[in-house]
Amino acid sequence: MEQKINTFLQDIKSVVDAEVNKALHHDETLTDGLYKAAEYSAAGGKRVRAVFTILVGRLFGVKEDILYKTATAVEMIHAASLIMDDLPYMDDSQLRRGKPANHVVFGQDVALCASIAMLSHALELVLNDEALDTAQRNHAARVLTRAFGFDGLAAGQFVDLKLKTKNVDYAIIEFINAKKTAALFTAAGEAAAAIGGAGEKELNAIVRYSENIGFAFQIIDDLLDASGSKTVVGKDTAHDKMNFVMLVGKDKAYEEAQKHTDEALRALEIFGDKNTELKALSAFLLKRVH
Amino acid sequence: MEQKINTFLQDIKSVVDAEVNKALHHDETLTDGLYKAAEYSAAGGKRVRAVFTILVGRLFGVKEDILYKTATAVEMIHAASLIMDDLPYMDDSQLRRGKPANHVVFGQDVALCASIAMLSHALELVLNDEALDTAQRNHAARVLTRAFGFDGLAAGQFVDLKLKTKNVDYAIIEFINAKKTAALFTAAGEAAAAIGGAGEKELNAIVRYSENIGFAFQIIDDLLDASGSKTVVGKDTAHDKMNFVMLVGKDKAYEEAQKHTDEALRALEIFGDKNTELKALSAFLLKRVH
Repeated sequence: MEQKINTFLQDIKSVVDAEVNKALHHDETLTDGLYKAAEYSAAGGKRVRAVFTILVGRLFGVKEDILYKTATAVEMIHAASLIMDDLPYMDDSQLRRGKPANHVVFGQDVALCASIAMLSHALELVLNDEALDTAQRNHAARVLTRAFGFDGLAAGQFVDLKLKTKNVDYAIIEFINAKKTAALFTAAGEAAAAIGGAGEKELNAIVRYSENIGFAFQIIDDLLDASGSKTVVGKDTAHDKMNFVMLVGKDKAYEEAQKHTDEALRALEIFGDKNTELKALSAFLLKRVH
Repeated sequence: MEQKINTFLQDIKSVVDAEVNKALHHDETLTDGLYKAAEYSAAGGKRVRAVFTILVGRLFGVKEDILYKTATAVEMIHAASLIMDDLPYMDDSQLRRGKPANHVVFGQDVALCASIAMLSHALELVLNDEALDTAQRNHAARVLTRAFGFDGLAAGQFVDLKLKTKNVDYAIIEFINAKKTAALFTAAGEAAAAIGGAGEKELNAIVRYSENIGFAFQIIDDLLDASGSKTVVGKDTAHDKMNFVMLVGKDKAYEEAQKHTDEALRALEIFGDKNTELKALSAFLLKRVH
């Protein structure tokens, strides 16, 4: 099954890379540099969130290609948020995914314009998606929009920034992880489940699953950061922002990631045997650190 | 009729101010400062775009309260864009609407988070708007989303930034005005007309009207800037960005604003006698300068 997830990640990565390319294709002369800056950041990444989106959809019998645009939108929102995270007055990162951060290459002004344009483009992809009916488009757009606002990325980044020099406790780091990371997983999961016609009980289960996967994913990311190897994570952050690993140590942090993964798996129980792929994905994501 | 428009502006301003207040009402402790920063910028303004939205709706028989959320969303997107425009690496403005710019008060990091959160919140307002059916929500969200992306604000700001030190001609300034200013008027007009059940011919007429009003509005803004009186415009920009007035002089610029207003009025002709309020609004906006 691990092999299958690996293959699936490769396949979906190819599809999403092509979709991003198509979405940013244009024949504008004046704004060519804006598209180039967006492409620079949208082109990278393992596409974990896209795979996540599509596998949740499959649980509900949604054919993969129905979710290509939604999955691409999730990745574009993620890419846009990374551009903003890296800005000097945010996390001040020079490197991202092993190459210079967007603002290092294009300047802060262009980086911000590209980021905003990508947020817009991601939502347009969903709001215009011919594979979906109007109610599905709106549901997906609604949860993806929420994921970067007052209950999502902006909130997480705000608390992260404001509290980085203060005493930070478990609850605050949990809030930051919930908003900065889990919110987009949750939106992706809810969008896919809604497109799959999930009822309220099923939607709630997917939200619980997605939140916990998001939490586990962030802790594993922090563990990878803590391993200190830039080559592993391709990130270089000037500020030592407090995170879960720094707060409780590596072993306890890994236990916490394991706990969230278990909680995610429990949420899947109502789906019986159909949950195999999502279970495999959870195990795969947890294993990244080892 | 001018008096009526004045009264209408006052009335709608009260309504939209209250809606913004309601939209940003919350009981979050950790993110209170994020909401405060958003409120700081969302609270101001003449609400011209909200009035514009509602008057276009009235042309199609839409009752005002049906458009309150859409009009509020338009104003929140506008406010979010102003926060970003004022950032040091953008237009580097210290003052906005007669008070310190958002980033001067809250810092660049919080200003950006607040701006992103407001974009999200604006779209959520529309996508959750119980006054609208699913198709109406979709259409409104779609055009408002487009207004800040690769065909809207981000594109306009990008070209504005990249070309400010180069030779600028009429076509480029027209592009900037189209994207930075007219795009949001056009989205507001199209959203309102679509909510009013406008057919294709009517939608096209409203788009033409809105674009031209947007152009005229921007030129008048530039004329007010050129009058050099900060107290009039409440703005203080470090960079002398090229604009229409600087390119062709005040008289020719005013003629151009007049020309766009005339073109806007011609677009309204298909509506016969029903167009009185929109005609009056056009005249009112042109008159700001005198």
